[in-house]
Amino acid sequence: MRQAGRYLPEYKATRAKAGSFMGLATNTDYATEVTLQPLERFPLDAAILFSDILTIPDAMGLGLSFALGEGPRFATAVRDEAAVARLEVPDMNKLRYVFDAVTSIRKALNGRVPLIGFSGSPWTLACYMVEGAGSDDYRLVKTMLYQRPDLMHKMLAINADAVALYLNAQIEAGAQAVMIFDSWGGVLADAAFHEFSLAYTARVLAQLKREHGGVKIPRLVFTKGGGQWLTSMKQLDCEVLGLDWTVNLARARALVGENGPNAKALQGNLDPNVLFASPAQIEAQVASVLDSFGAPHLDVTQSGPTQIFNLGHGISQFTPPESVEALVGAVHSHSRRMRAGGC
Amino acid sequence: MRQAGRYLPEYKATRAKAGSFMGLATNTDYATEVTLQPLERFPLDAAILFSDILTIPDAMGLGLSFALGEGPRFATAVRDEAAVARLEVPDMNKLRYVFDAVTSIRKALNGRVPLIGFSGSPWTLACYMVEGAGSDDYRLVKTMLYQRPDLMHKMLAINADAVALYLNAQIEAGAQAVMIFDSWGGVLADAAFHEFSLAYTARVLAQLKREHGGVKIPRLVFTKGGGQWLTSMKQLDCEVLGLDWTVNLARARALVGENGPNAKALQGNLDPNVLFASPAQIEAQVASVLDSFGAPHLDVTQSGPTQIFNLGHGISQFTPPESVEALVGAVHSHSRRMRAGGC
Repeated sequence: MRQAGRYLPEYKATRAKAGSFMGLATNTDYATEVTLQPLERFPLDAAILFSDILTIPDAMGLGLSFALGEGPRFATAVRDEAAVARLEVPDMNKLRYVFDAVTSIRKALNGRVPLIGFSGSPWTLACYMVEGAGSDDYRLVKTMLYQRPDLMHKMLAINADAVALYLNAQIEAGAQAVMIFDSWGGVLADAAFHEFSLAYTARVLAQLKREHGGVKIPRLVFTKGGGQWLTSMKQLDCEVLGLDWTVNLARARALVGENGPNAKALQGNLDPNVLFASPAQIEAQVASVLDSFGAPHLDVTQSGPTQIFNLGHGISQFTPPESVEALVGAVHSHSRRMRAGGC
Repeated sequence: MRQAGRYLPEYKATRAKAGSFMGLATNTDYATEVTLQPLERFPLDAAILFSDILTIPDAMGLGLSFALGEGPRFATAVRDEAAVARLEVPDMNKLRYVFDAVTSIRKALNGRVPLIGFSGSPWTLACYMVEGAGSDDYRLVKTMLYQRPDLMHKMLAINADAVALYLNAQIEAGAQAVMIFDSWGGVLADAAFHEFSLAYTARVLAQLKREHGGVKIPRLVFTKGGGQWLTSMKQLDCEVLGLDWTVNLARARALVGENGPNAKALQGNLDPNVLFASPAQIEAQVASVLDSFGAPHLDVTQSGPTQIFNLGHGISQFTPPESVEALVGAVHSHSRRMRAGGC
């Protein structure tokens, strides 16, 4: 998650040249450069596009910006019937800078590791579109949801169709897997999550390309705070579920990770704050995450349960880069031991 | 949850007289007045002491204050070995103002409804003690937890013993039930929750008085974001578990609410943001929460599953008081219909 970023001095240097976050994300050369920076330092198994989850509402005309040291902010918020009526699926040409970055990064990677594209989920986009920024209580977006569910459904349908077009264009441009970040699904009440988040993630998935140039394109879905809804999420038409650090991996594997038509690979789930401990402590926590999922099935004729090691959410800007090095080393050495049957 | 507060104009008037939040909480007359204000407006079934979850660290000498429009802040944070070494269970005389308020409120209530006392959980107190204020990422407290688990365990043991003394003194002063708010348990990784939050909530419960003056004192535990851990929380020695709005009540009832030695009554779990919808919409959401738990057992010789209707967390300061009136009316009328077998 968020491999590039403010914890890397070389990222800060490139961002300073670019002048702003969006200046970085919209410039093909800079976006390529910062996407590849973590791979120069660490032996990672995949790269993730450097961009933001909120490029779609920006292309809808809402005016995305990032003040230094703050989160995202929109110049225009969507808070009433008239504002919702003005929304439409944006012209994908306005997002050309993202697709150009994908193509440029694929070329620069030159087959070294696969490239993951991504977007925010329809619900997560709606949160920012209504609130206009991050929120502690999601009061404005939930007021619309409970008071005017018709408007909320209209906005989510537009968002879902836009996300699907956007991810398909990333696939056309060269993304070899795509991930949907439902960063704020976990703030919803149980029934509301199913109606306003999960249903629209499913609407995106139903429209996604399954393959490109004869190669399968895996689809990953991450709902932060979604650990209680794994049984519902198992029904999603995707290959991988991302899990935050609150989830017990053994339980998740038993619920959704074993063989069967809807079985999912599981991605996660180390608490990024572990990276403030010592290398030996990081190693112990990595081992505990891997052991908690358990060994893969040994019958190699079966497509058995799979874990993709990852952080449970974004990395902190204060993380020492040496901690990431210790983390990647520990994942490789401990999983090698597990595969050899040593644990 | 938080029946009194900034959504009530009469509360704002009393707070203005008191000068500050702590001025309000430490004055017996004011604390009594604001505790009773919601009962003058709404036919509620219980009262909850007006106070703060952070009075204990304040009594430890950390200096609690509330700037207008902001959350709590400590003058001194606990971030290293020397600061932890200085911590001790505070002299309960420093919290006399709380016990005096309890006695005064009991007298003013005069048997009308029972009075609930409360405290923050050991882990939630530790979060604020280390961070010094609220936090987005709990980086400082988790850094201590992962880097120096020995210090964290030491602080939590002191907190737990202080919370137990504090709640027992509230019981002596007249509290007829006590609630432990584990507001930040849900930010922990699965294994860390069990080791650093749940274990210390259990340490508090083990020390609490079971009865006072021959009357049983029910104990309630609420972990925000704890829905994934209900099976572990079922083992707690308490009568009630509070649930936030993300929890499916039917599933929770099946897991922990049915008869048996460890069965719990369940408290919750309406999203407080529902109170920004219309009265008819509030009524529909209330019915849906009550129906989701389902009817109580009809065999009255059994101590069957019990639901205590509540919000899933604190009420927003922007809530229209009329919405609370609609809510309380809907709870009473719909649960009467359910008990009569009409649903």
